[in-house]
Amino acid sequence: EIVAAIEAALLPETPGVSQVPYHNVIYQRAPTGAAPGMGEAVGRLEPARPLVGRRVLVTSGPTHEPIDPVRYIANRSSGRQGHAIARAAAEAGAYVTLVSGPVAQPDPPGVHVVHVESAREMLEAVEVALPADAAVFTAAVADWRVADAAEEKIKKQGTAAPTLTLVENPDILAHVSRMTKGRPGLVVGFAAETEHVIEHAKAKLARKGCDWIVANDVSPETGIMGGLSNTVHLVTATGVDDWPTLDKDEVARRLVARIATALRP
Amino acid sequence: EIVAAIEAALLPETPGVSQVPYHNVIYQRAPTGAAPGMGEAVGRLEPARPLVGRRVLVTSGPTHEPIDPVRYIANRSSGRQGHAIARAAAEAGAYVTLVSGPVAQPDPPGVHVVHVESAREMLEAVEVALPADAAVFTAAVADWRVADAAEEKIKKQGTAAPTLTLVENPDILAHVSRMTKGRPGLVVGFAAETEHVIEHAKAKLARKGCDWIVANDVSPETGIMGGLSNTVHLVTATGVDDWPTLDKDEVARRLVARIATALRP
Repeated sequence: EIVAAIEAALLPETPGVSQVPYHNVIYQRAPTGAAPGMGEAVGRLEPARPLVGRRVLVTSGPTHEPIDPVRYIANRSSGRQGHAIARAAAEAGAYVTLVSGPVAQPDPPGVHVVHVESAREMLEAVEVALPADAAVFTAAVADWRVADAAEEKIKKQGTAAPTLTLVENPDILAHVSRMTKGRPGLVVGFAAETEHVIEHAKAKLARKGCDWIVANDVSPETGIMGGLSNTVHLVTATGVDDWPTLDKDEVARRLVARIATALRP
Repeated sequence: EIVAAIEAALLPETPGVSQVPYHNVIYQRAPTGAAPGMGEAVGRLEPARPLVGRRVLVTSGPTHEPIDPVRYIANRSSGRQGHAIARAAAEAGAYVTLVSGPVAQPDPPGVHVVHVESAREMLEAVEVALPADAAVFTAAVADWRVADAAEEKIKKQGTAAPTLTLVENPDILAHVSRMTKGRPGLVVGFAAETEHVIEHAKAKLARKGCDWIVANDVSPETGIMGGLSNTVHLVTATGVDDWPTLDKDEVARRLVARIATALRP
């Protein structure tokens, strides 16, 4: 029987030590059938589960936009960061739906995973997954798709190369941010930039109408896209938090801890 | 000490039994230091290694053609068939160089693997890997690349979607087939089609100047692209062999057995 859970005050800033809050959970250990209040109180440090009873939606991975039955437009997102966020939110007790594009990542345990390919499929799956208390749009959704994907494989004919006319995909982040009914209490976007990272992220926050933007520099030389660590900046209405370079799992745990604080009544 | 290797005449047509020829290898088992001719002859069936001393070049997987630092054009090739051919050729005793596009397949043991991304990188690696006795071009090389890949991530600006102007990639199969100096003795291409499979494959054989085409139907409903089995037709100057639907490993072993027969002096 859990008697009390006291949040541990100590959050060491030691490198490599998780910044996730811990609870000092006090258990009442007593023989079966003992009278109330009998027995011994035992304390144990356990990770806080501050998202118990909360619904969290996470998108992850790239989208694939078909050109013809065998060719498609893709991007270098591995899904590592989004999957880590879904896993961390589930570990914090949330009911998590993860809408994932094509990735090599395994489905995180205890998470409801919906697999999609294109941006339009992702939007549909997101609409089905709502309502949610918080939505984190980590997926690198293709901005554009090919206007008329071919039914049969496009053949190489003579020397004329085809021209791909692109049309804009639905903007899932902006769509959810601007919902007048059923908007999640907290909408978090990601901004993968290769230049002017903070400036672009601030502009994106205003343009999309979301609450936070997690911005990072995905220039090839950073190794972040497809890599194991990430250097992010959390952009909110009130300012910018620069986080140190962290394992993507730790970025996920910190972000989930921030979300839990923001959702606290 | 191996005394003799006699090719087994029996190649059962039983489903599921490999069609790869076996050798009845006769070993001389004798005590250390025994006089020549002493001891006992022991026969053991072993897979034939008919490509010992041969150099085989195999390409596999898709190519990725950059649009900008984060986006690219890809295709659904998993690399399963090409990697299986490289593995089978190595098992048959060949020195194998495998030039592979981005795949989730592990490097086959005992094979020299060169990892590339784009068609132009693949051509370079193929040229470095030559000369070879046989070259098998299994890779689904992109026919086109984007004319001017952007140095920075293309931003979504207003409502105007960009148009991707494509230019033709080098034709690796045709290039190697038409080499006047150092052409591999046997050049094998693959044709992934979604309609008129045999007709397109015959036209490709003539157009490219290669010796054989392995043709298959990669329509999404066949599940061949990314799948474990394959239904191929071997198109040569003298006719078409229709193979039954087989595991991709068995397609590889049969093809390697045919290559070994063709290379036999």
